[in-house]
Amino acid sequence: MKAAVLYGYNQPFKIEDVPKPVPKGYEVLIKVAGAGVCHSDLHLWRGELKDIAPPTFPLILGHEVSGVVEETGEYVPPHIKPGSKVIVYWAYCEQDDKYALKGLYQLCSLRAPAGIAYYNGGFAEYMLVPHYRYLISAEGLEDLAAASVLSCAGATAMRSVKKIINEVDEDEYVVIIGLGGLGILALQLVRILTGARIIGIDVKKEKIERAWKIVKLSDYDVLIDASQVDVRRSIYEATGGRTVKAVLDFVGSEKTIETYIDLLSPMGTYVIVGLGSDQSLIPIRKMVVNEISIKTVFYSSYRELETLIDLARRKMINYKDIVEKIKLEDINNAIERLARGEVMYRQVIEF
Amino acid sequence: MKAAVLYGYNQPFKIEDVPKPVPKGYEVLIKVAGAGVCHSDLHLWRGELKDIAPPTFPLILGHEVSGVVEETGEYVPPHIKPGSKVIVYWAYCEQDDKYALKGLYQLCSLRAPAGIAYYNGGFAEYMLVPHYRYLISAEGLEDLAAASVLSCAGATAMRSVKKIINEVDEDEYVVIIGLGGLGILALQLVRILTGARIIGIDVKKEKIERAWKIVKLSDYDVLIDASQVDVRRSIYEATGGRTVKAVLDFVGSEKTIETYIDLLSPMGTYVIVGLGSDQSLIPIRKMVVNEISIKTVFYSSYRELETLIDLARRKMINYKDIVEKIKLEDINNAIERLARGEVMYRQVIEF
Amino acid sequence: MKAAVLYGYNQPFKIEDVPKPVPKGYEVLIKVAGAGVCHSDLHLWRGELKDIAPPTFPLILGHEVSGVVEETGEYVPPHIKPGSKVIVYWAYCEQDDKYALKGLYQLCSLRAPAGIAYYNGGFAEYMLVPHYRYLISAEGLEDLAAASVLSCAGATAMRSVKKIINEVDEDEYVVIIGLGGLGILALQLVRILTGARIIGIDVKKEKIERAWKIVKLSDYDVLIDASQVDVRRSIYEATGGRTVKAVLDFVGSEKTIETYIDLLSPMGTYVIVGLGSDQSLIPIRKMVVNEISIKTVFYSSYRELETLIDLARRKMINYKDIVEKIKLEDINNAIERLARGEVMYRQVIEF
Amino acid sequence: MKAAVLYGYNQPFKIEDVPKPVPKGYEVLIKVAGAGVCHSDLHLWRGELKDIAPPTFPLILGHEVSGVVEETGEYVPPHIKPGSKVIVYWAYCEQDDKYALKGLYQLCSLRAPAGIAYYNGGFAEYMLVPHYRYLISAEGLEDLAAASVLSCAGATAMRSVKKIINEVDEDEYVVIIGLGGLGILALQLVRILTGARIIGIDVKKEKIERAWKIVKLSDYDVLIDASQVDVRRSIYEATGGRTVKAVLDFVGSEKTIETYIDLLSPMGTYVIVGLGSDQSLIPIRKMVVNEISIKTVFYSSYRELETLIDLARRKMINYKDIVEKIKLEDINNAIERLARGEVMYRQVIEF
Repeated sequence: MKAAVLYGYNQPFKIEDVPKPVPKGYEVLIKVAGAGVCHSDLHLWRGELKDIAPPTFPLILGHEVSGVVEETGEYVPPHIKPGSKVIVYWAYCEQDDKYALKGLYQLCSLRAPAGIAYYNGGFAEYMLVPHYRYLISAEGLEDLAAASVLSCAGATAMRSVKKIINEVDEDEYVVIIGLGGLGILALQLVRILTGARIIGIDVKKEKIERAWKIVKLSDYDVLIDASQVDVRRSIYEATGGRTVKAVLDFVGSEKTIETYIDLLSPMGTYVIVGLGSDQSLIPIRKMVVNEISIKTVFYSSYRELETLIDLARRKMINYKDIVEKIKLEDINNAIERLARGEVMYRQVIEF
Repeated sequence: MKAAVLYGYNQPFKIEDVPKPVPKGYEVLIKVAGAGVCHSDLHLWRGELKDIAPPTFPLILGHEVSGVVEETGEYVPPHIKPGSKVIVYWAYCEQDDKYALKGLYQLCSLRAPAGIAYYNGGFAEYMLVPHYRYLISAEGLEDLAAASVLSCAGATAMRSVKKIINEVDEDEYVVIIGLGGLGILALQLVRILTGARIIGIDVKKEKIERAWKIVKLSDYDVLIDASQVDVRRSIYEATGGRTVKAVLDFVGSEKTIETYIDLLSPMGTYVIVGLGSDQSLIPIRKMVVNEISIKTVFYSSYRELETLIDLARRKMINYKDIVEKIKLEDINNAIERLARGEVMYRQVIEF
Repeated sequence: MKAAVLYGYNQPFKIEDVPKPVPKGYEVLIKVAGAGVCHSDLHLWRGELKDIAPPTFPLILGHEVSGVVEETGEYVPPHIKPGSKVIVYWAYCEQDDKYALKGLYQLCSLRAPAGIAYYNGGFAEYMLVPHYRYLISAEGLEDLAAASVLSCAGATAMRSVKKIINEVDEDEYVVIIGLGGLGILALQLVRILTGARIIGIDVKKEKIERAWKIVKLSDYDVLIDASQVDVRRSIYEATGGRTVKAVLDFVGSEKTIETYIDLLSPMGTYVIVGLGSDQSLIPIRKMVVNEISIKTVFYSSYRELETLIDLARRKMINYKDIVEKIKLEDINNAIERLARGEVMYRQVIEF
Repeated sequence: MKAAVLYGYNQPFKIEDVPKPVPKGYEVLIKVAGAGVCHSDLHLWRGELKDIAPPTFPLILGHEVSGVVEETGEYVPPHIKPGSKVIVYWAYCEQDDKYALKGLYQLCSLRAPAGIAYYNGGFAEYMLVPHYRYLISAEGLEDLAAASVLSCAGATAMRSVKKIINEVDEDEYVVIIGLGGLGILALQLVRILTGARIIGIDVKKEKIERAWKIVKLSDYDVLIDASQVDVRRSIYEATGGRTVKAVLDFVGSEKTIETYIDLLSPMGTYVIVGLGSDQSLIPIRKMVVNEISIKTVFYSSYRELETLIDLARRKMINYKDIVEKIKLEDINNAIERLARGEVMYRQVIEF
């Protein structure tokens, strides 16, 4: 089968013919439909995940994967059968881990995520999944290849939104910083899963314009182009001095944290998502005086991905318009475009 | 001022001229815009609230009230000023009550709800509210008179929905029984505040038809006319054997409880709203085996009403199309129509 | 090996020599130290679990089991090794079940509990556990045989107490009905895991007296012998009219439910534990007016058992003084004593 | 009446005769029994609260106050009567504030805490409380003067512990940093309100020794003198590599945060209590990878104080042995000792 193989940090991916794996035991081989190119792939490529989940080269990347079951191992139950459309939950985990028992595979002790640390991923025609329990039904989705972005970008946005659902009342504001791949999905999820008022922020005019088109916002929701205006003042005017109760920060830079943590009202929650700054200064006293909390999100649980897929199935969220489809051969260009900040939302390798 | 006065149980309301009250201290006089006729008014009229909140006759009923501030007592702060549009939170409560400290005025020890137990309500041109803290801003609402229904029907539906928000995942089903005034609002609220799949049920064809028009449901949501089909079978088919995780029962009869509690999957929640049956048989063992819970709802908290009003302000819920406007003089007819079950949603006395 | 085998409902257990199983794959063979005789064993014996978890005869009962690892299958990881002291979590469950993902094995779709439905239990010298993930470390416990009671009685009490921990403030009362095996453990757990005031109730004088000795209660906690006094009046006097915020009902009869649900203050919670009455009448209106909830508990999660064992290890609960040790040969007598209500707490078969 | 009056930052308190106030309306005059000298008093004295709650001089400090009702205003209900023993909840707040509705007076918009910002406190023979709703019954307490420390130190410790109760399982560890006034109370509260394992840390040998005497810890709980050992290593050894799930940091310095946030396992919670460092660096990426949260606590809610008092009434916590009683005339010395770090727990002015 054809695969994009990475032999070491900062090296070009090589498109090669490699043996098609044969599933045994609980394993399942899937024919890849779509494989998203994620910021984590860029981090891995640059060697920045070394301490978190060290890869073993040569490696086939691609943890954001949808596909169709091709062949199953002998212990796989019959409801997982060739032809089934599936999305891969990629945070592989020992089943008797304490966090696994809470459904939090992504936080278990021994982490071996697909396409990142040990197991090959989906930048290939076929992908071997080590256990059928990592497969979630993707039946009923309109665009299976595009839906691969639900698996990482979508699910992470989902968990981020879940972190603030009980913190924000319907007449309070949620600020979403960064309207790229995760942010645009979070914007949609906050709108359909809560009654809160929304302030979306980005520094690129075209992202603001696209967001208005993709998401059906409600009255009093606003989107702000932070490159054009003083955001603090704009927020004050937009809210009429009302309360900002939560911030979802998909940038996570020292600057965004410094700027926006100050806006929170008492009992406010600041959520930092993904691998932004290595460290940051925070205003302890101001936080204490108002009982401000900080939460963090890395990736999602199995159930969060599964329920998100159902929202997509029912067309409650739009994932199709945030995908640029590319070919496996474009992978090196895709990584470069990502590095240069040229990708508005998500690139997906379609097979 | 003109008022509908009730002199005793089961007697006709008398339209009379009574003195217009003068607010003192913390009191506020409001010019009534709309006053909803609620099932609780019928219960009171029949003497069925005797044990819960005994009325003192003569009494002006009407606890579901919107209006405009007319005059304020000397201690009322300046932000409550003549001309302000307001909705009355009617569950008056001592401020040092333990439940008041949690914002649960509706559950406090000494209950003296407006228009029910001791204080006059809004079936009159003016209404004296005993403290400015019971007033919630209604600025920005399209139809102030109709919006009075938010105050009881709406707020109770809101609290009911809040009881299940954390119990139901996005790919699980909520069943809503009874699509009258409260049910049609709950149907809307479940749709905008959760990602759950919905099954709405009523025994009247026209309610099913109207519900499809009023509420923008998502794919896989269904509405069932229980007078035409076997509901259990219909639910099984609609869900494809999936899970019913919560039931919101706005009927609360022995029959609905018996029928629908059986449908719940493990950890399922059955919510009984309002004054239905006096008592009911429940299947303890079946519940235990699946850890089924029962929750109950009577009325809402202050914040639940306040946040609901904000949803109406932002046009996220439709309250206008569920109101039939009537005149104060129609009150006796209104109560009779309610008793005969002829009211689809809510009647509101408009001034 | 020697085992007590049951060949059908209401038949005497036969003490027989049966083949000692050999563990394969993920299986583990344990040498039984203690096996508790549970009310569920009596229910099973009488045929009352037929609809819940139908047994396949001949069957070795005994789901409440502690022991020492004797031999392991080839896939069992090395930290589970011969000589390890363990307690069995007996609610076996498919690992990809939705409830398993939340750690709620006991609520999964296909239930095959050890010693009840399909797999043999611990009324035998050895017990074959089908997967190593059902074993929890019991190192550091003073009396391994007696500690078997943690596995069902203890864990169920644990989950019951967890159901009310967030419902009761420190100055509010919890009523515990029935101070037998589960109740005496719940009494201890409420005392060490919450600051709530406690009212313990039983109808047997000796249970009241023993409870005072076993549990170190705090000032204002009371134990009431309901056979001697009017319990409602006693509770009123004991609390000085304060609030009963939760009831843990380990009897679950129509009478206890009727008597005690009335005592709850607004937002009160009534927890029914285990297989009591088949059905019961509940006062819907009274519940609605005060937003009373009913919760139910059947058995516990894996983590609840694991954390309970740690409380026992640290001597925060006393399980030793509630165990009467018996021999395997006494099993028929033990079941009869249970049926006649002669067992104060728990009987454990010691090997 | 005799009072200690402060005329400006960094000036000595003057013991003067000032007019005894006369309560009107909802006001209550209490005869002070005990008034604790708090770190906030030192902060205020140094001018460090200027931005948080600016004082108006001359001011009588003392927000941690117990006493006996002396006289009541005309609107005060009869259950608040001369002779009643009370503790003052000092975070005065407008009753229609959004946070007041949740019982979170301490987080309301306009903060005017007793003895800090506008209203006089309890460093005087009598104290005028502006509304009877700020008084909590202190009947049944053994030492009313000493119990004043519950009002600030105790209540803040209580809220801190509440922040982690649902985050820590019984077999997981809580680290408590700083075993002074708040820490020693938190140590007790974690022990009686949770089943978690505890690691207490301080840099003074005598605090470690006293803590062992004051608190009845359970097996596997440890106290570490951080001045003598490498704390990280000691924690690793004490836990046997087990999980630290929460940290309660009563020091809140850059150093404690840096040292201990690293110890948290996935989903761990770091709670910073009170006015420590102005700002601090935090390791964002490490936190994200493990979903670590930071929570902060300033002061408590009304109910948290009320329920804590009930724990003291029932002798579940020891507050008496952490109090050094002083005279009003000693106030300047007391502030100096506090500044020099010579006070082990709390000083209370007794009248």
